[in-house]
Amino acid sequence: MISSTGTKGFVRLEHGAGGLAGWELFSELILPALDNPALAEQGDAAVVEAGGLRLAFTTDTFVVSPLFFPGGDAGCLAVNGTVNDLAMCGAQPLCLSAGLVMEEGLSLDVLERVLSSMGRAARNAGTCVVTGDTKVVQKGAADRLFVNTSGIGVVAKNADLSPAGAKPGDRLLVSGPLGEHGAAVLAAREGLEIGGGLSSDTAALNGLVQALLDSACRIHALRDPTRGGLAAAINEIAWRSGAAVRIFESAVPVSPAVAGTCEILGIDPLVLASEGRMAMFVHGQDGEKALEVMKGHALGRDAAIIGRVEQGPPGRVVLETAVGGERLLPMPSGHPLPRIC
Amino acid sequence: MISSTGTKGFVRLEHGAGGLAGWELFSELILPALDNPALAEQGDAAVVEAGGLRLAFTTDTFVVSPLFFPGGDAGCLAVNGTVNDLAMCGAQPLCLSAGLVMEEGLSLDVLERVLSSMGRAARNAGTCVVTGDTKVVQKGAADRLFVNTSGIGVVAKNADLSPAGAKPGDRLLVSGPLGEHGAAVLAAREGLEIGGGLSSDTAALNGLVQALLDSACRIHALRDPTRGGLAAAINEIAWRSGAAVRIFESAVPVSPAVAGTCEILGIDPLVLASEGRMAMFVHGQDGEKALEVMKGHALGRDAAIIGRVEQGPPGRVVLETAVGGERLLPMPSGHPLPRIC
Repeated sequence: MISSTGTKGFVRLEHGAGGLAGWELFSELILPALDNPALAEQGDAAVVEAGGLRLAFTTDTFVVSPLFFPGGDAGCLAVNGTVNDLAMCGAQPLCLSAGLVMEEGLSLDVLERVLSSMGRAARNAGTCVVTGDTKVVQKGAADRLFVNTSGIGVVAKNADLSPAGAKPGDRLLVSGPLGEHGAAVLAAREGLEIGGGLSSDTAALNGLVQALLDSACRIHALRDPTRGGLAAAINEIAWRSGAAVRIFESAVPVSPAVAGTCEILGIDPLVLASEGRMAMFVHGQDGEKALEVMKGHALGRDAAIIGRVEQGPPGRVVLETAVGGERLLPMPSGHPLPRIC
Repeated sequence: MISSTGTKGFVRLEHGAGGLAGWELFSELILPALDNPALAEQGDAAVVEAGGLRLAFTTDTFVVSPLFFPGGDAGCLAVNGTVNDLAMCGAQPLCLSAGLVMEEGLSLDVLERVLSSMGRAARNAGTCVVTGDTKVVQKGAADRLFVNTSGIGVVAKNADLSPAGAKPGDRLLVSGPLGEHGAAVLAAREGLEIGGGLSSDTAALNGLVQALLDSACRIHALRDPTRGGLAAAINEIAWRSGAAVRIFESAVPVSPAVAGTCEILGIDPLVLASEGRMAMFVHGQDGEKALEVMKGHALGRDAAIIGRVEQGPPGRVVLETAVGGERLLPMPSGHPLPRIC
């Protein structure tokens, strides 16, 4: 995407959509510039050793528009997103940072609501924001408020997770219905009225991950399907693991409200962001047990086994449709859904 | 500043200028929302315990305009700034993160130059960017590129530094001429031609701090005089330490080019940002020795002893002028110099 333009070209919305263009930007430009093995791992967080501990370290900037949406706001979204990036490495959060870019003229009331929401979300996840930074830019130089959150976590001793960890025979689970965050933000932005209501699924998954680690299920890979949705998450893991993945479409939980929104907007729910769900590859013999553990947790009660790793070409992701047909589920490309998180 | 408006009011450029308004925003709104003791410490970085280590953790977003200026760019500025925040706690960097907000249409060539500069700066400081995030917003929703860098450092075992650590009798040193970064960015932005040239002082101070720690000088407090310049840095430490500080104006190193720029722009060099200098409070008996150590390091060869902690009202900062008069040096207020870093 970069080189195909002849010149180096320009940043496009697609580069931030969590799909193919972003992956190319990362591998062709960002990784060479910052070259090091930890970054090349491309986990949700990097894992570094210090003092005999494995520390997980992650960063995310949240540019969601609108700042407030059904079920959440930029503040809790940022905290939960960072806690989840740590959790996807099997880590409990140690502490968080907050970096705010504010547009001149932003209401202090809005700022206070977002920050209070951050504080509550951090407490709910058992952590806190210990350091921060505030920058103000002139009116028109930013859109209201951008929130960066970084986080340090301590990886559980028994966690052995990697985006390259999926293995033949693994079961693929998701912890709940997909796409609720993306649908809620899009509907709020477009002013859609959906019967039944839509609400972001934003939530901190570290408790659920801890329950799974405590259960001794052999978890191989975790990923939260944020930008680019389940399609991006599973393609990344399949590609990194050299695994062929089969997903049973009829098993994938999608709420009627999300399905309806997707129909109106012409979007596949499998590319819509969730911010409080995770996909998990677990040893084939542990699939049912892991499902039970998930269902026993408030954030996993609608969990489902939706697929498996099978024999086949490395990196292939196949969707088996309800009527028994099958199609490839590619890494999303194009379809920019900007500022969903 | 917040409550004095009657209503809660709006974010102003002043809130981001590193002076009084920013301090009020922090203490009246941000700290209550995110309330916890580590954040209340207000160090350049927070220090948290893990695995028997003291970890320093910091975050900074860089919204500097222009992105490229004499002596540096947003990329090396971000890395050096974060390394320095860790160094001010006596920590060597373990790893960094990079969170990019890009405006649709940003040249990929610009992006590559900034990222390559980040990579080089990180290598120079003995660290690397291990995790990152990229967001793209629509044209007009951000000004080209904002770079957040967070960092984890390991605090030296013998470091006992705190912004509340200055003690009576301490000597106050600076590691070199002040305000060169701020003057270079302002001149580049205003299109000023200054005889003799101006160049940002951006540099990573972790090596210099290590040399000082190795020397066993009894260092009590370090701060890099970034936004709000030396005036903000010293007022913060004086206030936090309950110390009265006397600064000898004639001893404060300011280059002729910076002095000239300040005259043209009507700005006090003591409120201009440096990005590769530090102020140090050291035990009164160790002042000369610390000065020698600084002068022996490439980044401290123009270091100077510029003041001391004396008996007097807690938090007072007095500037003794060349002709023997004295005036209070207040925490900067107003004077917004936006997007200097």
